[in-house]
Amino acid sequence: MSLEQEMQQIGQQAREASTMLARATTQMKNAALEAMASEIEKQQDALMAANKIDMDNGEARGLNPALLDRLALNEERIAGMVEGLRQMIALPDPIGAITDLNYRPSGIQVGKMRVPLGVVGIIYESRPNVTADAAGLCLKSGNAAILRGGSEALNSNQAIAKCIQTGLEVAGLPSNAVQVFKTTDREMVSELARSSQYVDVIIPRGGKGLIERVAEAARVPVIKHLHGICHVYIDDEADASKAVSIAFNAKTQRYGTCNTMETLLVAKSVAGEILPPLAAQYLEKGVELRGCAETMKIVPQATAATDEDWAAEYLAPILSIRVVDDVDAAMQHIRQYGSGHTESIITENWTTARRFLTEVDASSVMVNASTRFADGFEYGLGAEIGISTDKFHARGPVGLEGLTSQKYVVLGDGHIRG
Amino acid sequence: MSLEQEMQQIGQQAREASTMLARATTQMKNAALEAMASEIEKQQDALMAANKIDMDNGEARGLNPALLDRLALNEERIAGMVEGLRQMIALPDPIGAITDLNYRPSGIQVGKMRVPLGVVGIIYESRPNVTADAAGLCLKSGNAAILRGGSEALNSNQAIAKCIQTGLEVAGLPSNAVQVFKTTDREMVSELARSSQYVDVIIPRGGKGLIERVAEAARVPVIKHLHGICHVYIDDEADASKAVSIAFNAKTQRYGTCNTMETLLVAKSVAGEILPPLAAQYLEKGVELRGCAETMKIVPQATAATDEDWAAEYLAPILSIRVVDDVDAAMQHIRQYGSGHTESIITENWTTARRFLTEVDASSVMVNASTRFADGFEYGLGAEIGISTDKFHARGPVGLEGLTSQKYVVLGDGHIRG
Repeated sequence: MSLEQEMQQIGQQAREASTMLARATTQMKNAALEAMASEIEKQQDALMAANKIDMDNGEARGLNPALLDRLALNEERIAGMVEGLRQMIALPDPIGAITDLNYRPSGIQVGKMRVPLGVVGIIYESRPNVTADAAGLCLKSGNAAILRGGSEALNSNQAIAKCIQTGLEVAGLPSNAVQVFKTTDREMVSELARSSQYVDVIIPRGGKGLIERVAEAARVPVIKHLHGICHVYIDDEADASKAVSIAFNAKTQRYGTCNTMETLLVAKSVAGEILPPLAAQYLEKGVELRGCAETMKIVPQATAATDEDWAAEYLAPILSIRVVDDVDAAMQHIRQYGSGHTESIITENWTTARRFLTEVDASSVMVNASTRFADGFEYGLGAEIGISTDKFHARGPVGLEGLTSQKYVVLGDGHIRG
Repeated sequence: MSLEQEMQQIGQQAREASTMLARATTQMKNAALEAMASEIEKQQDALMAANKIDMDNGEARGLNPALLDRLALNEERIAGMVEGLRQMIALPDPIGAITDLNYRPSGIQVGKMRVPLGVVGIIYESRPNVTADAAGLCLKSGNAAILRGGSEALNSNQAIAKCIQTGLEVAGLPSNAVQVFKTTDREMVSELARSSQYVDVIIPRGGKGLIERVAEAARVPVIKHLHGICHVYIDDEADASKAVSIAFNAKTQRYGTCNTMETLLVAKSVAGEILPPLAAQYLEKGVELRGCAETMKIVPQATAATDEDWAAEYLAPILSIRVVDDVDAAMQHIRQYGSGHTESIITENWTTARRFLTEVDASSVMVNASTRFADGFEYGLGAEIGISTDKFHARGPVGLEGLTSQKYVVLGDGHIRG
């Protein structure tokens, strides 16, 4: 079977399943989530055995330790998948909700009903737990899912997929509601991204290279989780102790996440007061500092930051620091180098905070809070399938609602247009 | 200047203007709308003169009468543009609205703020009034606009653009907030659709050919207003008099609109009662009827409908009629041939109505109302820039809100993540 034929078959099965899912009751979807969770619990040994094959292959192929770590399944991670699915049962079902149902002068009632997108394609790398997460979120939001994991996790993903499909069948839903590609051919990614007749949205989860490759090939709308070059700006009217604690937390609470601060901006008039104690904390923690000329005068341990530094997503214990004139200069820097992910200002000044909130163009804009808060769980979405840096459709953490659309409903009683 | 260079210049100017528009107050935007309206009123003679050149050129080039009619400006149409701009002043400003601002367990407050998309590209054909409509909607929603009208309306569009830019300047807003291409090169459409660094969304308004050409070239998200193959299904529990009046209105109130019914579906058990009087009305009005075998037995004047008829958007006094077994067969026909625009059921049965509302996948789904209601004014959006048949971002009539995005705002008081 050619890639195109395989895509066609999987696509048609997904479309068919999606019409059944769109009318599945909340109760049925929750029953399927519970059955999926139970089956994963029951098949723990089979999952570990499948994962062992992937790990052995990975080691033989010389995958780096970070990749191997992400690939590994253990009891704790399997329990995490199970817990994740069970938490989705508790989330409110977004489908069918009717909002803004109002009478119009003509006498008709017009409102909006939340509906599934249809078929969601998810392309991801290494971490096999995404298979269960993505399947659960798509199911709860009434969408059929076509999943395409990384070749290094093929056996693990197939084993998880089997549990998911068993769960769907137990609950009386079509097992094709969640399909996982067996082909590891790289060309399949482009094939999926081109199949606008079968797929309503593509969500790539992975490195910048994967996302750009998908966006390039896509004929289907893409929800992109691109890079996060997040800034904290310490204003001249910042509370110094809040500033130090937030700037330290935003960089060091975790290094490898997209909402980690990569560049610290400090107002000139407070740099001399705030940078020395803050730099001391960073250095003690082992964070490498790179700064502008002004920063290097105040923090002698900092090396010179280049233009590449301002544009870098380090995902590592490295921080670039720039001293700026004021909030306008800070916002100008963010406009030039920011990736539209998350930006935070530390200030006690009402007007400055209000300007920053209004004028900064990013998926999350914060006042006096750590950029690390930017995620679906912290925002109360219950779960997330990614963080969108697009402005279109879904922006910021994408939970169940990002996987839905709305249609207009019109209720009349014989109404005709005059 | 090459097309690419021209696009770059216009694009950069639009981006710059868009950051100023994003922070423009409601008062400033409304003042600009009023100034634009006044200037158009004042320049009525100049607009008519410019339009005369286009009309003369069009006649010389042998444009068909329907196109010439759409191209023509007269006092009434100019007054319509002015009125349209003034109505936008009264619409609520969507920008800056914060919703769902709630405390989270961590102590931060998280909400969503409505923000402009940035730069909106609009590609349209013949009707010069779209220039004023689109400019006004983009301005009110805080977006910079790049407009690309049809070559046949070049002089009219430029004259309207001049009024709009004067209005922007009078109100202290950058005149580059609305730019109209002077190039009529067809390649410019693709250039615009590819310029994802300068444009946030493309809205093509015109025939299917234009829209498909834009979608094909696009690297920028597109809000597509594709064709409308709308159905009315008369259920076996329909009220006969409502059924006849709605089915007649949905077809004949206007023939050339995308929300006009193109195919009538009738339940077998009531076809014999309802079709004869309804067909008599259609025939008296001059509507050509094409039907399935069952229809032809009941309505001898109907000719045989082919598979192409079920898939046709006539935009003309032609109607295809199919007798179906029940609501399931009707929904199956709609799934197969519908374009996802607007679908209506006529029934007094609660359960059947509820099923149709839930299961039919279209931008508008109606019960006991004419499909002709599907537009932005009837739905209370105040104005519309098109009707989207996409599921992504904006679906159905697109008003000001469809031209916006939302960003998350996070308010803290020194909060860090634990």
